[in-house]
Amino acid sequence: MSPASASTPSAARPTRVAVLGAAGRMGAAACRAVEDADDLELVARIGRGDDLTAVADAGAEVAIDLTVPSATADNVAWLIDHGIHAVVGTTGWTEESLEGLRERLAGAEGVGVGVLIAPNFAIGAVLAMRFAEVAARYYDSAEIIEMHHENKLDAPSGTARHTAAAIARGRAAAGLGPVPDATEKDPDGARGAVVDGIHVHAVRQRGLVAHEVVQFGGVGEQFVLRHDSFDRISFMPGVLLGVREVASHPGLTVGLDGFMDLG
Amino acid sequence: MSPASASTPSAARPTRVAVLGAAGRMGAAACRAVEDADDLELVARIGRGDDLTAVADAGAEVAIDLTVPSATADNVAWLIDHGIHAVVGTTGWTEESLEGLRERLAGAEGVGVGVLIAPNFAIGAVLAMRFAEVAARYYDSAEIIEMHHENKLDAPSGTARHTAAAIARGRAAAGLGPVPDATEKDPDGARGAVVDGIHVHAVRQRGLVAHEVVQFGGVGEQFVLRHDSFDRISFMPGVLLGVREVASHPGLTVGLDGFMDLG
Amino acid sequence: MSPASASTPSAARPTRVAVLGAAGRMGAAACRAVEDADDLELVARIGRGDDLTAVADAGAEVAIDLTVPSATADNVAWLIDHGIHAVVGTTGWTEESLEGLRERLAGAEGVGVGVLIAPNFAIGAVLAMRFAEVAARYYDSAEIIEMHHENKLDAPSGTARHTAAAIARGRAAAGLGPVPDATEKDPDGARGAVVDGIHVHAVRQRGLVAHEVVQFGGVGEQFVLRHDSFDRISFMPGVLLGVREVASHPGLTVGLDGFMDLG
Amino acid sequence: MSPASASTPSAARPTRVAVLGAAGRMGAAACRAVEDADDLELVARIGRGDDLTAVADAGAEVAIDLTVPSATADNVAWLIDHGIHAVVGTTGWTEESLEGLRERLAGAEGVGVGVLIAPNFAIGAVLAMRFAEVAARYYDSAEIIEMHHENKLDAPSGTARHTAAAIARGRAAAGLGPVPDATEKDPDGARGAVVDGIHVHAVRQRGLVAHEVVQFGGVGEQFVLRHDSFDRISFMPGVLLGVREVASHPGLTVGLDGFMDLG
Repeated sequence: MSPASASTPSAARPTRVAVLGAAGRMGAAACRAVEDADDLELVARIGRGDDLTAVADAGAEVAIDLTVPSATADNVAWLIDHGIHAVVGTTGWTEESLEGLRERLAGAEGVGVGVLIAPNFAIGAVLAMRFAEVAARYYDSAEIIEMHHENKLDAPSGTARHTAAAIARGRAAAGLGPVPDATEKDPDGARGAVVDGIHVHAVRQRGLVAHEVVQFGGVGEQFVLRHDSFDRISFMPGVLLGVREVASHPGLTVGLDGFMDLG
Repeated sequence: MSPASASTPSAARPTRVAVLGAAGRMGAAACRAVEDADDLELVARIGRGDDLTAVADAGAEVAIDLTVPSATADNVAWLIDHGIHAVVGTTGWTEESLEGLRERLAGAEGVGVGVLIAPNFAIGAVLAMRFAEVAARYYDSAEIIEMHHENKLDAPSGTARHTAAAIARGRAAAGLGPVPDATEKDPDGARGAVVDGIHVHAVRQRGLVAHEVVQFGGVGEQFVLRHDSFDRISFMPGVLLGVREVASHPGLTVGLDGFMDLG
Repeated sequence: MSPASASTPSAARPTRVAVLGAAGRMGAAACRAVEDADDLELVARIGRGDDLTAVADAGAEVAIDLTVPSATADNVAWLIDHGIHAVVGTTGWTEESLEGLRERLAGAEGVGVGVLIAPNFAIGAVLAMRFAEVAARYYDSAEIIEMHHENKLDAPSGTARHTAAAIARGRAAAGLGPVPDATEKDPDGARGAVVDGIHVHAVRQRGLVAHEVVQFGGVGEQFVLRHDSFDRISFMPGVLLGVREVASHPGLTVGLDGFMDLG
Repeated sequence: MSPASASTPSAARPTRVAVLGAAGRMGAAACRAVEDADDLELVARIGRGDDLTAVADAGAEVAIDLTVPSATADNVAWLIDHGIHAVVGTTGWTEESLEGLRERLAGAEGVGVGVLIAPNFAIGAVLAMRFAEVAARYYDSAEIIEMHHENKLDAPSGTARHTAAAIARGRAAAGLGPVPDATEKDPDGARGAVVDGIHVHAVRQRGLVAHEVVQFGGVGEQFVLRHDSFDRISFMPGVLLGVREVASHPGLTVGLDGFMDLG
């Protein structure tokens, strides 16, 4: 934050942010991103075993939770009870635990508190998913190719599965049937996985990070959406978007797209 | 199909369609597309010099105008006066001639008549433009590469110019300034054209038809939209979409996106 | 061929060409391509059931065989016996039938006759295969994505299988082991087919024709080869290259690359 | 490893390597790469102002020069005089200074010493350039799109210029004339730079590093070469290839391709 704006009494006061899970790789990147943002101030770094009281003591208005599945539910409950908005990137939330959150947010302490649970902070992945659902209505064919580094353990990626579901929703809304495919002979499984009726291919390649290509085809044309994450730092604009918007979205929001203007 | 016709016992009665400019390449393709569609019936093919009376005599409900800039305004005026919906792909419309259309549609004869003026019937190009405007809000960098066959006379393409304008609108809405670019030395103009602040590159290559790539960049990531037209037949789904929707959109619509569900 | 060059007595005399299988789609395209070439003259179109004598009677120097597997071996034997060079695109040749060809070419009639058997006339596919073998030596990872129209019956394509074999040869020559791949969980087969140790993915999409992408990866980098056939006319430059070169390559050549300068 | 060393009982003895310019970013990366290679041993790190004597004292067999244009010529002369092979990535060499090197290598001290001057250690860029020259012979159209981070000062890149020259050589060898291009109207320069007759486009985009796309087009088809450098670590395989091969290539070699098997 620049000294000049810091001296203005008005709206320029930066938002006070705490990071939970600050010692992890994502957490450390989030700390740096908050520090580098003029409109945000990092007031607490909480590691494993640290007392959450420090978050309240530091006067945090928003907390970023990048901890582990076993800790995140308790963390968020505590934050709600203390009137602190939460931006949560930790996975492991179930429909049941989300329902618990909704109840707590509807209670006395939760009034006015905003919680964002975002399984994917990559803005580009969110855009790809949304655009895929829209484009799917207009094309006969749709396929997904996801590409990751050679150390990824599972295939296909969760993002690819979610994108396939989005395409299936778009096709259903448009009354489209199965994708056309005349394959009769595929002894080695070259046509890949089928997720919600959509073929999904997973490439594993040294030097890559996380990439998704969605291809749509109609007579005489092709439409392609592609998102490339070259570095985990690419998640930070999504994290900061969440931090900046969460206070003006009281209650529970699932998915970063809830804070984006995708109209 | 309009609610009115849906209520008839034989809901399957096809919509009666006339094609103006039926002898041209686009017109001939449109005739074939209408003939191939189960829910449409081709009732008149009008060529240069043919009397428009045949359109009304044939009982056409919708007319597709794929004629020439010098004829299209008179054609559409005649269609409105005869209560026939119009789907127009002919270029050459000005703000003034569009205003004339609006007035005629607001008049006695025009009530309930729908007119679609679509400079681009490629659904993929329309999607690319809309998605580009949305994505532009979230990325620091944006550039366009359009690629066409070697016989194209002008560069860049009109679609690329429109896409640049859409990106500029998206950036302005998000309060983004100029794209970052440290270029100091570019003696031969490799950075291409600048349209509305966006760099646009035009490739001319034998074997290609009409292609557009829009690239967005942020720290550690890239987002890409690509549309490939391999054949002019790719315009036909857009033409048919217009024919099917125009009756339920009385008044003037400019741009195929007005009939699409892009939310 | 232009009248002017036809009147010169010297090298400008066009080569006399016959097309066998002239009524098929590939054959008809070959006839047009020969007619359009200044240095070639189409002297015979042979269809199913026509007598091959017409080829000799017309004074053909080179014959293009684009017939069917059951006919091609007899056709080529006849051409050799009549001292006519052959360019063969028909599939179905076995090691045994090729060996028979070699013997006949080594006999009295075969001296000086050139025969090219080319399973793939797409110059780009030949380039991609050769370059893939070379590049494979220098990268840890290699994968193939082939993409075709939705009516293709088999997966993966023959070209993709040949390319996988070429990559495997390149890796073996460089002493490379298996491609790195940590996948532990792939319940739906998203990793695709494995051909000669190389993962191959097959996309089927309306609007596409025949496309191949070969991706190589190393630490911090990627190298990609891509070939797109938008139209079967793209095979014609390869056919004409064969016709022009076959007379100067006596004996049997298998693969168009034998006539190309790929050094 | 050279045949001589291969004959020693402990063939596994690693080659002793010094790095000049070890404190720079490329130099530091080279030190790490040498340390990580089982067949190499880092025996000296030389920074600005350090005495080169340490290189000889440490028994280095090969030295990697990643210093600055003003120092590299003297460094290499010294290395030759001490019988130490040199792998040089520093730019700034002129025809004149290269000629001086050749003379020194032909002299008494230079016998058997190998020097590699490599303006580009990215194996993928070297492959792209070589393949581009070969492919250029077979296609009517050729264009280059290079893409870099937004902080690059010059356009187009040196690699793109060299690639354009390679394409021009390939086209000349095949007797091809100018690329087909009907452009009549390009008021804003969208067709980009023309280098050796080839159109070159430069994209500048945040999040990218260094990328080159070479597109070839013929009737009905496209052939594409693409190289992506995501990280400067991608130069290291090329540096190590140079270190491993330089002893078996006495005399001067300009360009990493001189050590590669590109046949």
